[in-house]
Amino acid sequence: MSIEAYWVSGSPYSWSVLLALEVKGLAYQSKLLEVSKGETKTAEFLTLNPLGQVPVLKDGDTIICESLAIIAYLDRQYPDVPLFGETSREYAHIWQSALEHVNYASPSLFKVVFPLWSGKAAEKADDIKQAAGLCHEMLAKLEEKLSNQPFMIGDQISAADIIRLPGLQCLINALNQAEAAPLKLGLLPLVTSYPKIDAWLKRIESISGYERTYPPHW
Amino acid sequence: MSIEAYWVSGSPYSWSVLLALEVKGLAYQSKLLEVSKGETKTAEFLTLNPLGQVPVLKDGDTIICESLAIIAYLDRQYPDVPLFGETSREYAHIWQSALEHVNYASPSLFKVVFPLWSGKAAEKADDIKQAAGLCHEMLAKLEEKLSNQPFMIGDQISAADIIRLPGLQCLINALNQAEAAPLKLGLLPLVTSYPKIDAWLKRIESISGYERTYPPHW
Repeated sequence: MSIEAYWVSGSPYSWSVLLALEVKGLAYQSKLLEVSKGETKTAEFLTLNPLGQVPVLKDGDTIICESLAIIAYLDRQYPDVPLFGETSREYAHIWQSALEHVNYASPSLFKVVFPLWSGKAAEKADDIKQAAGLCHEMLAKLEEKLSNQPFMIGDQISAADIIRLPGLQCLINALNQAEAAPLKLGLLPLVTSYPKIDAWLKRIESISGYERTYPPHW
Repeated sequence: MSIEAYWVSGSPYSWSVLLALEVKGLAYQSKLLEVSKGETKTAEFLTLNPLGQVPVLKDGDTIICESLAIIAYLDRQYPDVPLFGETSREYAHIWQSALEHVNYASPSLFKVVFPLWSGKAAEKADDIKQAAGLCHEMLAKLEEKLSNQPFMIGDQISAADIIRLPGLQCLINALNQAEAAPLKLGLLPLVTSYPKIDAWLKRIESISGYERTYPPHW
């Protein structure tokens, strides 16, 4: 049995899955696909995911799509370095935190990220500024949470951290584009605007194997 | 310890949580809130969920928000009548199925439901027809799946069924509004357009306690 992870550079969902694999120290075959070459729409890939989307995990003859389902599977199948806590209460709060990121934080983040990535900063300036305001609110809550604890839920890294990091890194990447500067969104540098979040990011970046998850095209 | 479930009539997320409680046969205090009376924005309720949203579950001193997190918690804390299967593979595929519903099917469903519920059928006719086409595609896939098995994943009811049923019932409710008839969307009656899905709905409707989960204002 060997694990194959199909992913795309810079896809936050893919990135979370790679982080889960690295945090657990699992060996896996990295299958980096290029959307621009149609590699997520080949007949071969569509047998793995008919929706033609990454990430996909193949573990022996078990094929799983949807990043949260993959991370849940990895934690159940390979329980070392638990990603969903030890107790029912931790399990619940880690799921809640991960889902709150997906349902509320992520849409605001990507209303800033996508226009900047697609060269539409000037055209979408008002939308970006509005979404940046929501990002500030979200980051202020995380900053407060991280002032009392090293990770999102408690003392250990969990799925709540793994789900959040890629979205925040996408935001930082987008804000570092030259086009972002005139908008004066006040989010960077993170180390001065949100120092606890900055320290949390560095804590995760120090994990063995983190560099293998970082988008190679950045 | 007693379980309190805070919910709103017709909220699909609330409904899924009530179904999980009923399928597991758990005793709970039903806390039906009325949005129109501001009952999800009271100081008391905001201490349970600062976002002011339902569902919320309180089990002793454990408070959980986000429907999927609540269902995950219930399954871990009260494992009788498992909702996420027995094996890692079943666990993965039930999560995948539930998340695919939330991420892909639900947005299409509610692009049909919301305009019909808010009296905008004529104004939004083109959008509704386009979304109804996506609903047909989604229902055709479910119909095929249910031609081989009684529930979404395998032989037992699971979180994959519990997450899906409320959205489909909302669709049926909206399509039964008088305003829907002139649009000729071809989705109802379900028993002729999608008989396997109709039988699946009836299978779940026969569960003991189902009537307690049905929106009282319908």
